[in-house]
Amino acid sequence: MATLPGEGPIELAKPTNPMISALFSDLYQFTMAYAYWKADKHLDRAVFDLLFRKNPFGGEYTVFAGLEECIRFTATFHFENSDIDYLRTVLPPTCEEDFFAYLKSVDCSDVEIYAIPEGSVVFPRIPLMRVEGPLLIAQLLETALLNLVNYASLVTTNAARHRQVAGSDKMLLEFGLRRAQGPDGGISASKYCYIGGFDGTSNVDAGRRFGIPVRGTHSHAFVSSFMGVEEITERSLPNSNGNEKCDDFIGLTQRWLSKLQATDSFRGLFSYTNRSELAAFVSYAISFPTQFQALVDTFDVMRSGVPNFCAVALALNELGYKALGIRLDSGDLAYLSKQCRKIFSVIEKEFTVPGFGNLTITASNDINEETLEALNKQGHEIDAFGIGTHLVTCSSQPALGCVYKLVEINKQPRMKLSQDIVKVTIPCKKEAYRLYGVEGYALVDLMKGVDEPVPKVDERTLCRHPFSESRRAYVAPTKVEKLYKCFWAGKSGISAEPLPCLEGVRKRCKAQLAAMRPDHLRALNPTPYKVSVTGKLYDFIHFLWLNEAPVGELR
Amino acid sequence: MATLPGEGPIELAKPTNPMISALFSDLYQFTMAYAYWKADKHLDRAVFDLLFRKNPFGGEYTVFAGLEECIRFTATFHFENSDIDYLRTVLPPTCEEDFFAYLKSVDCSDVEIYAIPEGSVVFPRIPLMRVEGPLLIAQLLETALLNLVNYASLVTTNAARHRQVAGSDKMLLEFGLRRAQGPDGGISASKYCYIGGFDGTSNVDAGRRFGIPVRGTHSHAFVSSFMGVEEITERSLPNSNGNEKCDDFIGLTQRWLSKLQATDSFRGLFSYTNRSELAAFVSYAISFPTQFQALVDTFDVMRSGVPNFCAVALALNELGYKALGIRLDSGDLAYLSKQCRKIFSVIEKEFTVPGFGNLTITASNDINEETLEALNKQGHEIDAFGIGTHLVTCSSQPALGCVYKLVEINKQPRMKLSQDIVKVTIPCKKEAYRLYGVEGYALVDLMKGVDEPVPKVDERTLCRHPFSESRRAYVAPTKVEKLYKCFWAGKSGISAEPLPCLEGVRKRCKAQLAAMRPDHLRALNPTPYKVSVTGKLYDFIHFLWLNEAPVGELR
Repeated sequence: MATLPGEGPIELAKPTNPMISALFSDLYQFTMAYAYWKADKHLDRAVFDLLFRKNPFGGEYTVFAGLEECIRFTATFHFENSDIDYLRTVLPPTCEEDFFAYLKSVDCSDVEIYAIPEGSVVFPRIPLMRVEGPLLIAQLLETALLNLVNYASLVTTNAARHRQVAGSDKMLLEFGLRRAQGPDGGISASKYCYIGGFDGTSNVDAGRRFGIPVRGTHSHAFVSSFMGVEEITERSLPNSNGNEKCDDFIGLTQRWLSKLQATDSFRGLFSYTNRSELAAFVSYAISFPTQFQALVDTFDVMRSGVPNFCAVALALNELGYKALGIRLDSGDLAYLSKQCRKIFSVIEKEFTVPGFGNLTITASNDINEETLEALNKQGHEIDAFGIGTHLVTCSSQPALGCVYKLVEINKQPRMKLSQDIVKVTIPCKKEAYRLYGVEGYALVDLMKGVDEPVPKVDERTLCRHPFSESRRAYVAPTKVEKLYKCFWAGKSGISAEPLPCLEGVRKRCKAQLAAMRPDHLRALNPTPYKVSVTGKLYDFIHFLWLNEAPVGELR
Repeated sequence: MATLPGEGPIELAKPTNPMISALFSDLYQFTMAYAYWKADKHLDRAVFDLLFRKNPFGGEYTVFAGLEECIRFTATFHFENSDIDYLRTVLPPTCEEDFFAYLKSVDCSDVEIYAIPEGSVVFPRIPLMRVEGPLLIAQLLETALLNLVNYASLVTTNAARHRQVAGSDKMLLEFGLRRAQGPDGGISASKYCYIGGFDGTSNVDAGRRFGIPVRGTHSHAFVSSFMGVEEITERSLPNSNGNEKCDDFIGLTQRWLSKLQATDSFRGLFSYTNRSELAAFVSYAISFPTQFQALVDTFDVMRSGVPNFCAVALALNELGYKALGIRLDSGDLAYLSKQCRKIFSVIEKEFTVPGFGNLTITASNDINEETLEALNKQGHEIDAFGIGTHLVTCSSQPALGCVYKLVEINKQPRMKLSQDIVKVTIPCKKEAYRLYGVEGYALVDLMKGVDEPVPKVDERTLCRHPFSESRRAYVAPTKVEKLYKCFWAGKSGISAEPLPCLEGVRKRCKAQLAAMRPDHLRALNPTPYKVSVTGKLYDFIHFLWLNEAPVGELR
């Protein structure tokens, strides 16, 4: 119902989330900042990679999101006097005053951020962002950047997975605000689910903030708040043409209910519908004659909710209105949706109401990826899903686990070793490319040192697993895509890429998913996508590893 | 390090989370509001219960949190013109203009909120809050109140459970900001973990906002940023007495490292420590001589991190400083902590450094309730835990599932039926009491209609399971505690309870947990706590049920 925002670049001057200041960080960033400053290393030119190590939800892909918020944070990063005053109270009194004066002067004008565009399909180990800048400042950005990317990418990926399972023809609505992890969890869930392929949200605030379509009708409380039709004071409803008027819409509805009860096909089934429910539906229809949609499970879907709904919908139809449909919020959704569809189809035929058989059936109630999969297997007649808790809290894996690792300082490569190989970082300032095969699908992502030659179309390029000697292959790509663009240039003079609007990011996500081989995306036993390094980078990693490891270890 | 806020009531005039406006809600609240208004029901006096149906994390208790935020939201609830303008765009054009004018005029002056005090131990089915007010306004509060209570109570409970397992003598630090679900997820996690029994957080912003102690030292990146001791320009360090000065602290550290390498007890083990790590530790110690704590697993804990740390700590000791200790962030934490403790103890004895054996060992790295349990079983020497991802995302159950149900309207009881008995709501405006037994522990919570007599000390009171005929018992309580207090009185003239400060809520949580029988709190097979209704309420529920259910169903 909301108008969608136009295409076009994002204004960075707009403030970021008001909860986020330069103190939105871990204390150790400030203790390190002080130690860097004290050791006169604070201006050393550092390169940090922001990456994740494992795809979420047992899948083989991730959608990168949160970049816009990261760039906004970077663009507006600075310390207020009140920030400094607080820091003075939490750092030891031995800290020198000049440090605080220095902090007051810093901003991100010497920082550059290179990133994969937001909405891209991404894979473990390939950095999502490369942050270059003075060591102290690049270090201070860590916590906020991680916070802004971690949940954004997680919930976008979750939404994309729900879309994959539901299919492109279903309407998917995010209903998670009340169960999200805090206010901002709810607001950002709505935004990122939309990027991941949802059609709308129940969240009005997110609708206003981001221009996302908002949807909703009524709850059980609405039904429970009515006693019976006698309490409805306004009984009239104008016809849809506006020229005539039905003086007793309640009477009209009751006549339709009697007709339904007398219909052979429904004999006995509709004998005793709940009167307060009928009153609630009539009242809702009088308020929203053009958008009548009813929650039908407050008492009993088949014996009360559906006949009450149909009576109101048929009365509306007589006045020239088309009802929208029903929402099911409990019970066996596959079975109930099929039963409802049957009843709608019988009514379409019996009373000659074209389109009645195609009324929208919306389902909600604890839906997740597995429920969608199970519904697909059983067969169902649901047109739209309202998905809340599991979607927004990412219940099957509620954290992505992005990390931020120093890979170069003053042009010297740095590498974090670990007895756990998944935690070993790939050193150096790197570029990354996506290589495509003859069928047009992405084949492999390749990292190289910045000074190495760029892989070329139709030219054999060696792609090696970064840590496993035997896993390597030559690829002759049909297309080579450079993954990083500069999204924050500071005062470097480099021309920074404009940030796309929300619709642009959503479109990119859709296009990127379409460019992936389907077996990487499927829910059951997906094929891992290959992530590789050049032969030169491979050799360098292992040379460095030998030289950094303590004697007797890891050699 | 931060000063804790004093005791005393909270100022409501302070704005709530800037992300939360009156549009922080689901669209259906507004469609219902319009339909209530159109049916002239908007001023009907409604009573809503906010409750949850199942304890989280497989446990048998929950800690209620989020009340302060709810009351702030209520106190400041109103619509701006811009809110109304947006609503006009998402509701159908048939909606009457007078409705929007009415919305602009509403606030919560006719609302009353009764609640169990924040920080209390609570149980399923007993409403946490009872919201009374005009139907339209009480309905509009639903989504925000649920959002503010759901995650707050969930993460507070999670923190309390971690505290139960860790024991009261360990230091627990919340390190979750980077992995939390969005910025506010991180900030509120820090607050609510503190309420649930944590000692501090890494989150500087939360430290400032709430006066929570903040903690942190350095990361792997700090270690990786150094090449060797030769790059350290400032080599001097004043003695702790401030009168003398060591001109070459690096040389002093290197001499101590040599001594350690030559010590019989460590023969061979410390031969080749990493030079960049030593440089990082020396540099950190020069910056923070009074608070030297080092992350020792960047290369190899036992062969490099620990000897490098000990060399620096011993050099500091020679200058009159006491090092704090180490942090372990990978590997077998039980084993490593015991090995480290042994080395510290040997050094205490070997070099006569009193207290060296008791240096603080902090552990982090994917710790959760089960890890703590396993560490307890294995035996360990860890003094402090830094807990992030699993704590703040509540990974074992990332949503609590509170609901908000209409239980009375214009003094008429309302009840939501469901084929799923756990979803049946208990009708009527109710009071709730906690009855205590002879041992001083809470025995049972009891709900009654507001007009029923109050249970009395030493008087036999019938407590019935709300839905199960056979589950009932007489209780003669030694103490009767009324659970609800009025926290928001609007302009009713009722005197509202002042909201306690954060420290007050934290203390309440601790005291409440101490008043529970330990078998309700234990992690493995806890005993369910009993939740009951009076005989009169039981009879009424079942009378209403018979009369509301569709014929042939649920009788």
